[in-house]
Amino acid sequence: MAKGKLKNMLIAQSGGPTAVINRSLVGAVVEAGKHKAIDKIYGARNGISGILNNDLVDLGKETARTLETVANTPSSALGTVRKKPTKKDCSKILSALKKLEVGYFFYIGGNDSAETAHIISEQAASEELELCCFHIPKTVDNDLRENDHTPGYGSAAKFVACAVMGDNLDNRALPGVKIDVIMGRHAGFLTAAAALARVYPDDGPHLVYLPERAFSVSGFVSDVKDVYEEHGRCLVAVSEGIADEKGVPIAAKFLKEVDAHGNVQLSGSGALGDLLAAEVKDKTDIARVRADTFGYLQRSFPGLVCERDAREASAVGVAAVREGVTTGRSGSIAIRRRSGAKYQIFLKAVPLDKVAKDTRHMPPRFINDAGNNVTGAFINYVRPIVGELPPVGRLRCDRIARDK
Amino acid sequence: MAKGKLKNMLIAQSGGPTAVINRSLVGAVVEAGKHKAIDKIYGARNGISGILNNDLVDLGKETARTLETVANTPSSALGTVRKKPTKKDCSKILSALKKLEVGYFFYIGGNDSAETAHIISEQAASEELELCCFHIPKTVDNDLRENDHTPGYGSAAKFVACAVMGDNLDNRALPGVKIDVIMGRHAGFLTAAAALARVYPDDGPHLVYLPERAFSVSGFVSDVKDVYEEHGRCLVAVSEGIADEKGVPIAAKFLKEVDAHGNVQLSGSGALGDLLAAEVKDKTDIARVRADTFGYLQRSFPGLVCERDAREASAVGVAAVREGVTTGRSGSIAIRRRSGAKYQIFLKAVPLDKVAKDTRHMPPRFINDAGNNVTGAFINYVRPIVGELPPVGRLRCDRIARDK
Repeated sequence: MAKGKLKNMLIAQSGGPTAVINRSLVGAVVEAGKHKAIDKIYGARNGISGILNNDLVDLGKETARTLETVANTPSSALGTVRKKPTKKDCSKILSALKKLEVGYFFYIGGNDSAETAHIISEQAASEELELCCFHIPKTVDNDLRENDHTPGYGSAAKFVACAVMGDNLDNRALPGVKIDVIMGRHAGFLTAAAALARVYPDDGPHLVYLPERAFSVSGFVSDVKDVYEEHGRCLVAVSEGIADEKGVPIAAKFLKEVDAHGNVQLSGSGALGDLLAAEVKDKTDIARVRADTFGYLQRSFPGLVCERDAREASAVGVAAVREGVTTGRSGSIAIRRRSGAKYQIFLKAVPLDKVAKDTRHMPPRFINDAGNNVTGAFINYVRPIVGELPPVGRLRCDRIARDK
Repeated sequence: MAKGKLKNMLIAQSGGPTAVINRSLVGAVVEAGKHKAIDKIYGARNGISGILNNDLVDLGKETARTLETVANTPSSALGTVRKKPTKKDCSKILSALKKLEVGYFFYIGGNDSAETAHIISEQAASEELELCCFHIPKTVDNDLRENDHTPGYGSAAKFVACAVMGDNLDNRALPGVKIDVIMGRHAGFLTAAAALARVYPDDGPHLVYLPERAFSVSGFVSDVKDVYEEHGRCLVAVSEGIADEKGVPIAAKFLKEVDAHGNVQLSGSGALGDLLAAEVKDKTDIARVRADTFGYLQRSFPGLVCERDAREASAVGVAAVREGVTTGRSGSIAIRRRSGAKYQIFLKAVPLDKVAKDTRHMPPRFINDAGNNVTGAFINYVRPIVGELPPVGRLRCDRIARDK
């Protein structure tokens, strides 16, 4: 800890919003207020864009009451951005931080945001600038390396589980084929959480398709037929990111919009669900086939936050500030789980490059051999992360004898 | 009350499920258990289909504990159906009811279900069969005549308000145009409830389009442009049932599936949202345009039930049984609101034909002149129905002077 001159801190949010990302922001801001090493607490609006455009706010002036309300408000309170800094951006950012006398930079986000923190940290080192860069994890995709799970995932998973639980009851009351398209470009964790909706043995989702396994449209139709024959209905959870054996997203075959990085727009469109529904209609004689795409509702829904997720999101914000102030080193805070039956986590500082850029996927032991469902191991993994779900029940339904 | 011989009752659920339809079922079943006039309590599975196919259960055998859990479980516990009985069906139904010694028939549903109860009641009268037919109201569309509002609407409206509230925060953090497609074929009440998401003056939904007003695609694009210019973003709530000035659903222009009644399939597809998003992309230079279709999540979501809605759903079930047993007459239970500042309702038995078949729409005083928003009168109407929403807040965001 040798930040003699640069005592201010700057914090920002990046990437897709989550229901608990402000918990991390407020956790870090409140913790920073407790440390003499930190003087001013700046916030940049819309991630690094706020630093580049001088769109900065003084978070030290926020009242405790405002911070508490904001902590419980979904989506990024400082605004967010999807931007990878160029070398030129980095110089501009570092020069702005120097002017602001910032010695601590905290960036809340996913793997791309960790990458941004990493790039800035490397550039600072090469300019011999003393800057502590900390990444604070968040992502509904749950795809950060080094982590057992990621803040934001638990609440999004709870939304997905509740939505599919309700949809299973709906599908049971009005039988047919129902396809639910869930977020997840490369990692299937969020889609897989749909399996938590099962309470009774015949409950859906009956089929779960993840980006980790090659998706065959004909195999899918055949699976749906089998389930429909057995249960008289079929509820499917499918990730928006499913791709064929060559890695081409199924959605890409039917969508035109591609962003600057060549990524096809997957969210904010119902096209994949509609396509899969059309396939089932065409290839079977099942009359009632419907698709819903959960879309952005999954990541910013108020009033349904997972309490454990909220606490952990706050904890990683606090831990990043403590670690930064104590060690002066850059890094990221990772959530690790202790082995054993009881759910217990601990937080660990890890190097930025271990979290940045690449993502992790569902491990093979979480996916069944047929590639159309999750395993019990996944359920054991995810249940304590998401916590309790609303209780649902069925009538016993004593049938009246046929001769009546 | 002169049902000497026919002391049994039969109850069933019909039409689209809601989050609180089982409250009405359990309310009626528990109430029936208190009346000597009623002996056996039968349930038919999947509405009148269960009577036609002899798929009947003995609800008297359900435990209090099961009934309580089922009351709190979304979607129709007895299953449901969309079926209008033919004259032949009616004869079969009446003959089955006679065999079962049923003197009380309760049918939980919307206007179509009231119509079914009415048809059966008329046929019974013409056969001089003493049958008390009671319709118990439910519909997320809130479009039943004679009613101030309808059980199921409050919970669906709460889901929509929360979803749009979260989406508004998401859209604020990552600006662009966002279009949310909400249920409602002919009545805009559910879509209009999106307006409850507004907390701050610049909050979305900035535009609200309802089936009660002719929809012009070019007018819509122009509205979006105006809002985007003012706020740098635009959140739109649009009903799935919007139609052009000739009454042709906008969705119908792009969808092929039409059911036996000539109704275009509106729910369970993302096509309308995608179409509107494509129009904005084509006709403006706004880069980020997304659409989500809330779909079936709106009507059966567990864990987000509106408490007042749940209580009222139970109350109409109880009232129908009391009214039927006390008067022996057929009818429907309507929810009426007392005038005055404080929210107070009372329940009133009304004739079946006053509720059956035709629906009601948003009254003109609830819609603004431009036809792209709701009025304060609507907010005053809907707020007490939905009740409290999760609190959300904003940072004060004290800007740091530009010269820093």
